[in-house]
Amino acid sequence: MSTKEIALAKTRDALTEHRLDAMVASSPANVCYTAGTFFRTMISIPDRLGMVSVPADGEPALIYCTIEIGHARDESWLTNLVGYTEFADRPIDVLARMLTEQGCADGRIGLEMRHLSAGDYERLVAALPRASFVPVDAVFDRIRAVKTPAEIDLLADAARKTDAAIRAGFASARIGDTELDVAAAMIAAAQESGALKVHHHTLATGAHGFKTHAEAGTTTLRPGDVLRTDLGMTWPGHYLSDVAHVAFVGEVSPAQSEMYKKLESVQQEVGSAMRPGMLASDVFRQCRKTFAEIGLDFSLPHVGHSIGLGLHENPMFHPFDDSPLETGMIFMLEPLVRGLDGLYHVEDMIEITETGSRVLSRTADWSEPMVVA
Amino acid sequence: MSTKEIALAKTRDALTEHRLDAMVASSPANVCYTAGTFFRTMISIPDRLGMVSVPADGEPALIYCTIEIGHARDESWLTNLVGYTEFADRPIDVLARMLTEQGCADGRIGLEMRHLSAGDYERLVAALPRASFVPVDAVFDRIRAVKTPAEIDLLADAARKTDAAIRAGFASARIGDTELDVAAAMIAAAQESGALKVHHHTLATGAHGFKTHAEAGTTTLRPGDVLRTDLGMTWPGHYLSDVAHVAFVGEVSPAQSEMYKKLESVQQEVGSAMRPGMLASDVFRQCRKTFAEIGLDFSLPHVGHSIGLGLHENPMFHPFDDSPLETGMIFMLEPLVRGLDGLYHVEDMIEITETGSRVLSRTADWSEPMVVA
Repeated sequence: MSTKEIALAKTRDALTEHRLDAMVASSPANVCYTAGTFFRTMISIPDRLGMVSVPADGEPALIYCTIEIGHARDESWLTNLVGYTEFADRPIDVLARMLTEQGCADGRIGLEMRHLSAGDYERLVAALPRASFVPVDAVFDRIRAVKTPAEIDLLADAARKTDAAIRAGFASARIGDTELDVAAAMIAAAQESGALKVHHHTLATGAHGFKTHAEAGTTTLRPGDVLRTDLGMTWPGHYLSDVAHVAFVGEVSPAQSEMYKKLESVQQEVGSAMRPGMLASDVFRQCRKTFAEIGLDFSLPHVGHSIGLGLHENPMFHPFDDSPLETGMIFMLEPLVRGLDGLYHVEDMIEITETGSRVLSRTADWSEPMVVA
Repeated sequence: MSTKEIALAKTRDALTEHRLDAMVASSPANVCYTAGTFFRTMISIPDRLGMVSVPADGEPALIYCTIEIGHARDESWLTNLVGYTEFADRPIDVLARMLTEQGCADGRIGLEMRHLSAGDYERLVAALPRASFVPVDAVFDRIRAVKTPAEIDLLADAARKTDAAIRAGFASARIGDTELDVAAAMIAAAQESGALKVHHHTLATGAHGFKTHAEAGTTTLRPGDVLRTDLGMTWPGHYLSDVAHVAFVGEVSPAQSEMYKKLESVQQEVGSAMRPGMLASDVFRQCRKTFAEIGLDFSLPHVGHSIGLGLHENPMFHPFDDSPLETGMIFMLEPLVRGLDGLYHVEDMIEITETGSRVLSRTADWSEPMVVA
């Protein structure tokens, strides 16, 4: 089956399982998953909603702002495309009419309550007084949690190329360069290998690196500094990558090397223990335990997440997520530790296989600290 | 007064005017406006809320995820910083406790109903059963609509540097280059002049350019093609730029030149007519009328928007926005027309002055079509 067919089949199965008359996708990732298109302005201009209504009977409909008509027509695999004129129509009113046309005005309708705004929700409830509404955020999470082989190929390729781009960026860095210089080289390498654009990019050196999400600026690389990056790019098909590494400028001190190798050994130990049936919260606890055994301070609320069309997808490795790991899930394992000279961070992609797990993202030997310049 | 003092004074005035006991900022732009800090993950990981509760009496509080502690401590001008542990605490529960501590559990509380999620809203209403809640999206819009001189300086500088970066990107483009090559040169020029990162970047040539928000890909520049870009960068202080232009590859045909100059004349005519007291909807109608007079098809739902910490701020130039223009408002005027060979688009920053208006963004003579390569 194609990605489109699998997405539609899984959504229809969920409609049956949860006795729903319709499910409405409204977050960018779920719209992309159900319709095959991604509207950038759903993020940069949040009032400009895109939504997909998938009824139990009949064709799914994509509701889009007419400004995005080129994207909807070229990219979406859906054929029922319903445009609204921004400001003349309110998109949530268009959804209410669509649900009525789909025969769901008296029905049980699943909504993304973590995403739909309170104002739009109130207006929808008022427009469809006989309908009942149920949260389906976790249902969509569940649908997307186990990846198809095609999705795994896309994600693994994206992660490997991101790993290689980080290595290339570090390799080209020189003492005296600014963070922005290094960041530009890394992004150029990722784009050279097929990435479309930056999703997120932490890159910082020295004291600047203590901010978890510090972005590249004019700080220059100085000998002895730790250089940390966490790079996420958007790839064809709108899948994301998310890989983190550190390097050391000019030289690596024994203390730096020791902390680096400790974190690396946590990563290897926890990653290789992952297997089907283990709980997501077990991975968190295993990581915390390994930190303690090796003598590293642990203060993380989570140590990793699933990834796909969204960045932090569920399941996640935090103490309250008791989802069992399943074959075909794809995780980013990312322990982080606060050193005296900055944050030490490593993030790799790990696939849950039938018998255990395997690292998908590494393209170089990161077991020894990398020294740049 | 400093930006911080002005932001706080305006918010307190709004609390009095609207008889509110507290206003809660939850969108990235309003959190940045009221607290002076911007958490990138509020966009990339939407469940990781940041919020500011500003009570009528007492100190405003910034609620942030502890992962973002470095950003909160270094950037925010607020001193009441309340961190929550992701997954252990639900941020909306932390807000409910904060509003109770601030003496607002029985009060009238303003919320961003366009931004707060339906799920969080329901949980907040249940946690504070004696409070009443009112939408304050438009109140925040109004507070931020007239910019301070310091904000105007920041925005004008960002727009001018973006205009110059577009010109530099076009100037370095060559026949056979890919869209990605041109995009990288443009972004590098913007970063060289002080931009921190890309906010949005449309760049497309040939048939690809018919998509309103087409992003740079591997399409190559061919003689005779129109090349369009709409570039928004993030600048220090988290203010945004947003400038659009077209150029022509290798040569410009008489038909292309004619359409370019028609659009340019619309831009000059509508821009120079803007003045205090004119309605935002008047600008839309004036633009539509000028399109008709000059013989261009008009099918736009809006022709421009305010800008600041957010991209599309209100007032906006659409037929339903009857806000009067005021001295100190900053607009992006951006008519767009569909040519036979792609979209023609121009977007400039215009300041409303005491007596009329002036263009702030242009750093080059764009009156004649620019030919690249």
